[in-house]
Amino acid sequence: QITELTAEYFEEGAFTGKHVVITAGPTQEAIDPVRYISNHSSGKMGYALAQAAADQGAQVTLISGPTNLPCPDRVERIQVKSAEQMLEASLQRISETDVFIASAAVADYRPSEIAEHKIKKVDGEDQMIIKLVKNPDIVATVAQHPERPFTVGFAAETQDVAQYAQAKLARKNLDMIVANDVSNTKIGFNSDNNAATVFWGSGQRELELMSKAQMASEILNCIKTQLKD
Amino acid sequence: QITELTAEYFEEGAFTGKHVVITAGPTQEAIDPVRYISNHSSGKMGYALAQAAADQGAQVTLISGPTNLPCPDRVERIQVKSAEQMLEASLQRISETDVFIASAAVADYRPSEIAEHKIKKVDGEDQMIIKLVKNPDIVATVAQHPERPFTVGFAAETQDVAQYAQAKLARKNLDMIVANDVSNTKIGFNSDNNAATVFWGSGQRELELMSKAQMASEILNCIKTQLKD
Repeated sequence: QITELTAEYFEEGAFTGKHVVITAGPTQEAIDPVRYISNHSSGKMGYALAQAAADQGAQVTLISGPTNLPCPDRVERIQVKSAEQMLEASLQRISETDVFIASAAVADYRPSEIAEHKIKKVDGEDQMIIKLVKNPDIVATVAQHPERPFTVGFAAETQDVAQYAQAKLARKNLDMIVANDVSNTKIGFNSDNNAATVFWGSGQRELELMSKAQMASEILNCIKTQLKD
Repeated sequence: QITELTAEYFEEGAFTGKHVVITAGPTQEAIDPVRYISNHSSGKMGYALAQAAADQGAQVTLISGPTNLPCPDRVERIQVKSAEQMLEASLQRISETDVFIASAAVADYRPSEIAEHKIKKVDGEDQMIIKLVKNPDIVATVAQHPERPFTVGFAAETQDVAQYAQAKLARKNLDMIVANDVSNTKIGFNSDNNAATVFWGSGQRELELMSKAQMASEILNCIKTQLKD
């Protein structure tokens, strides 16, 4: 009877029957066996989205870069390191994905080659050059795919936030974008709180400072409304 | 009475009256407000050394890069990010330091300048170059200082371990060096175990696979013997 009640509870969720795929955390791009390039993403926003989507009845796959966060309940987690691994995991599931939320802070560039051995410091050389090549654009690749799901991007900016976010929405063929200003240290990467503006083709919604759990729920509300239209 | 017993207990330690300064963890070298270069050091070896030195009665200062480890009991921890910050913290205490153990995996190079705003991906540009400049060599700076303490370095290598380690011992004016082979995935950065060879001017000692706590104790034994000589 408990099983039946639980099943009924989840069937009431707004995302019941939907497969939601969420990317989260930073990516790590190897320079050599010990060094890498990464960023300060904690993964908290993506993990909060995964938890909220599962709570609303979705089947959730969380494709996560390296973080220190526990896997949320009732969520399938795929752990990856690099942007290329994250893209591969995203594309593997695309035909069964209803909503794709790209909250990961993917490295735009990766070292053009990964040294097999630790690169040694050369005593005479005071400078070193790392050549980087552009990483695949995961959210744009998904949004431009023939089997594209409803696709939501994130924009973490330090200046002209709305302008960059709206340009990205159009250029990448996204359905929705969540934009926040990471130069505000009260919110963002390592904080439990966040503030953002959600943009879609025909509108926008301001999300004032709130917990990342609350924000996850609000973002899912925006998605739900757009999915119905 | 408990206080007296406790005091007596600590006074029996091999390092009672000694100030031991230990660097640990990776350093993070900023590229811009969100991106950085770092390495896979967990900090476990340095934290184990701090714990073991405190247990043997030392006054311990742990200068730590970003890790997820709790500060060991009776240890003063200074948290830093970059190599430059780690050097500054090390030099500030040098005149009162008896033993300096440089277990941190310090970035050899840092970006030559830190961008004030997040560097934007340029659509036409498929490549990017990061110019790096050499970081200060913390352990060599300490070992060559007029007020130098007994100075212990670490060498994490993926090939020709003994050869690189002994060259480093001489070149940097160290008293001792602990060398391990990080290409062996059973030990090293993220493991709780380690195996290493300790080299000093007139000898060496093989430390077979053991826990990092045991290894910390063995390294301190080697230091104690050399301090007496």
